[in-house]
Amino acid sequence: MSKESALIRAAEKETGRIEAFSDGVFAVAITLLAFNLQVPKLGDAATPGQLALALARQWPEYLGFVTSFFTVLIMWVNRHGVFRLVQKTNARLLFVNGYLLMMTAAVPFSTSLVTQYLQSSAAKAACAAYGGVFVLISLGYSALWHVVTRDRTLMKAGVSETTIERISRSWRWGPPVYVAATVGAFVSPYVTIAICTILWVHWSIVAKEF
Amino acid sequence: MSKESALIRAAEKETGRIEAFSDGVFAVAITLLAFNLQVPKLGDAATPGQLALALARQWPEYLGFVTSFFTVLIMWVNRHGVFRLVQKTNARLLFVNGYLLMMTAAVPFSTSLVTQYLQSSAAKAACAAYGGVFVLISLGYSALWHVVTRDRTLMKAGVSETTIERISRSWRWGPPVYVAATVGAFVSPYVTIAICTILWVHWSIVAKEF
Amino acid sequence: MSKESALIRAAEKETGRIEAFSDGVFAVAITLLAFNLQVPKLGDAATPGQLALALARQWPEYLGFVTSFFTVLIMWVNRHGVFRLVQKTNARLLFVNGYLLMMTAAVPFSTSLVTQYLQSSAAKAACAAYGGVFVLISLGYSALWHVVTRDRTLMKAGVSETTIERISRSWRWGPPVYVAATVGAFVSPYVTIAICTILWVHWSIVAKEF
Amino acid sequence: MSKESALIRAAEKETGRIEAFSDGVFAVAITLLAFNLQVPKLGDAATPGQLALALARQWPEYLGFVTSFFTVLIMWVNRHGVFRLVQKTNARLLFVNGYLLMMTAAVPFSTSLVTQYLQSSAAKAACAAYGGVFVLISLGYSALWHVVTRDRTLMKAGVSETTIERISRSWRWGPPVYVAATVGAFVSPYVTIAICTILWVHWSIVAKEF
Repeated sequence: MSKESALIRAAEKETGRIEAFSDGVFAVAITLLAFNLQVPKLGDAATPGQLALALARQWPEYLGFVTSFFTVLIMWVNRHGVFRLVQKTNARLLFVNGYLLMMTAAVPFSTSLVTQYLQSSAAKAACAAYGGVFVLISLGYSALWHVVTRDRTLMKAGVSETTIERISRSWRWGPPVYVAATVGAFVSPYVTIAICTILWVHWSIVAKEF
Repeated sequence: MSKESALIRAAEKETGRIEAFSDGVFAVAITLLAFNLQVPKLGDAATPGQLALALARQWPEYLGFVTSFFTVLIMWVNRHGVFRLVQKTNARLLFVNGYLLMMTAAVPFSTSLVTQYLQSSAAKAACAAYGGVFVLISLGYSALWHVVTRDRTLMKAGVSETTIERISRSWRWGPPVYVAATVGAFVSPYVTIAICTILWVHWSIVAKEF
Repeated sequence: MSKESALIRAAEKETGRIEAFSDGVFAVAITLLAFNLQVPKLGDAATPGQLALALARQWPEYLGFVTSFFTVLIMWVNRHGVFRLVQKTNARLLFVNGYLLMMTAAVPFSTSLVTQYLQSSAAKAACAAYGGVFVLISLGYSALWHVVTRDRTLMKAGVSETTIERISRSWRWGPPVYVAATVGAFVSPYVTIAICTILWVHWSIVAKEF
Repeated sequence: MSKESALIRAAEKETGRIEAFSDGVFAVAITLLAFNLQVPKLGDAATPGQLALALARQWPEYLGFVTSFFTVLIMWVNRHGVFRLVQKTNARLLFVNGYLLMMTAAVPFSTSLVTQYLQSSAAKAACAAYGGVFVLISLGYSALWHVVTRDRTLMKAGVSETTIERISRSWRWGPPVYVAATVGAFVSPYVTIAICTILWVHWSIVAKEF
């Protein structure tokens, strides 16, 4: 093994560790979303019908759980799609990755906001905050992609311009669409949820390859 | 190494990442089941006997914890049994896998429902919801198996028809049995728990190989 | 690569997956122990001195956290010490391993019992339950070791009788000592904590190799 | 493969397992920091403006979350920087590593203290405790480095004195600076937070390589 390929191998091992750690954060954050599912507090005298009704009435919890779960899952798929092309890391990449992990860890919180306020008169503010967190995340992804494409020594050899162009094109839409989801909350909170849902459904379909 | 085997190797590495991420979600979800074990709230003046009695009285918590823990564990074993045969993934497989992870993350919630309502008059609804979540999960497993068997390029070479047939046969029973567990809740909530317990005990025994 | 060594390799890969999943459960459970550390609930008018005093007064929380953290850590080291010798698994091993994971996930609960009741009059029952969970765990480890040593095809080739004898000898003491910790709670709750602390300190010292 | 290199390989595999387990604890602890983000409890009649105001007013939660998240992330990077040089472990290293994991698991607790008391009159005590936890952690890192450098057989061959010297030099500042952050709390709680923030920003910049 030449010295160069040994260095590449060591660098890839490092990248693998960051990946594994990041995957751990994603796995914990995505599972903690389930804390949005709260057991209704009825007395011991509640009938089965009352419990069923109470469960049905907390549909915003299920909606928020499903929307956030798949959005985080798609984020994980995309993040992984970038790291597959990465051969080594630098301080800037580590920092942007840390920022993305932090914002991902905050998604259960913004989801909680929506599930607890969707049926209240403050729903617009809750959904705007929910959208705002995704704006911050999509800007982080743009920054991640910028860091990786700016210094091509970070990339594996043999990544084609076509691949880079394809990713650049598809990620371009993230920030503006999530801004629309945030602003749309002031029209109706359901605009935010509809846009976020359309986004992950769209992503699930276009994800030709993993 | 031929180009083809390099491609297979890269695809298997990808599959390995999904596996690792999915394992993370399973590990977090199964451990969070322990949040069903609640410390009894007695005053500082409680006697040891009162604490012991309070602990004994919350046996539905232990029952729910054990039943769900082993059910999720068996689900993990089965899910892994499928992914061992998988060589690469496509968007459909990713999506079904995401759905399974989401439902798995919801098991601590449905378990909580049972432990909090098993001794109340609403127990039937709680157990029906508990069974219903497992119906949704077993349907997800059927979908997963359908996706994998439909497009044989996803499978590793050399997987025998006998193996496929064996898995198809044993999984066929999942959805109807969990439907029975759900419907049975309206006879008695203990029918649900009995069926779920029998299922994981049965699975533990028949799991000839891992 | 001969067919036999290919089979061994595949089996070891399987064992590796169980290890990784089990490590995930241990990592989550051990970190959740920190939920025993509760922020004191004082009003906004509390002085720094009052907060410091309140923090000092909840020393049972710190004691429980440290004792359980290192006990679980030592359990992880021991469990790993066995799995290093294991080449393949069978249904029995999977089941015993699942039981151990379940009981490990329950340690944050039994620790909570102690930290919340150590300064109450029900402390003896709380500590007996705490010790009891470790009795159940140490019996699980004995069962694990029994399964592995009974069917030597599960073990890697070249594991010496000396190694097996050494582990057998050192594990023999687990169940009786934890039974003593449990029964000792009825003398004084601090007997339980003292024995558990002595055990993990002792283990940390004797752990010659990892 | 010579016998010696086989031994080194086995030892590195062991070290890899400790790394993976430790990464799991770090990933869970860092994600649990998000539990500091609490959904404001307003009634259903709250206006969007009131919710927005309530969210803005809990800025100490965001500050604590960001500061702790990046501090733990930098700790993870540093810890990994040491373990890259490690070839095998001994009981002492295992013990110090366990201590570091335990203290890391406690960071969400000390962060909670700050976010709940920063706007109260007890803020100084909360920030002193927050700084104190980091003092204990930085002492743990010094101990870790001491253990690794004292017994050079633990280190991989070929680690240069320059590398060792560089790490020794940069780590020297940890404990005194965190002591300053702790003592500074009695001047103003914001001194603690400022020092901790400066530290992780500084570290993010100087981390030339990962």
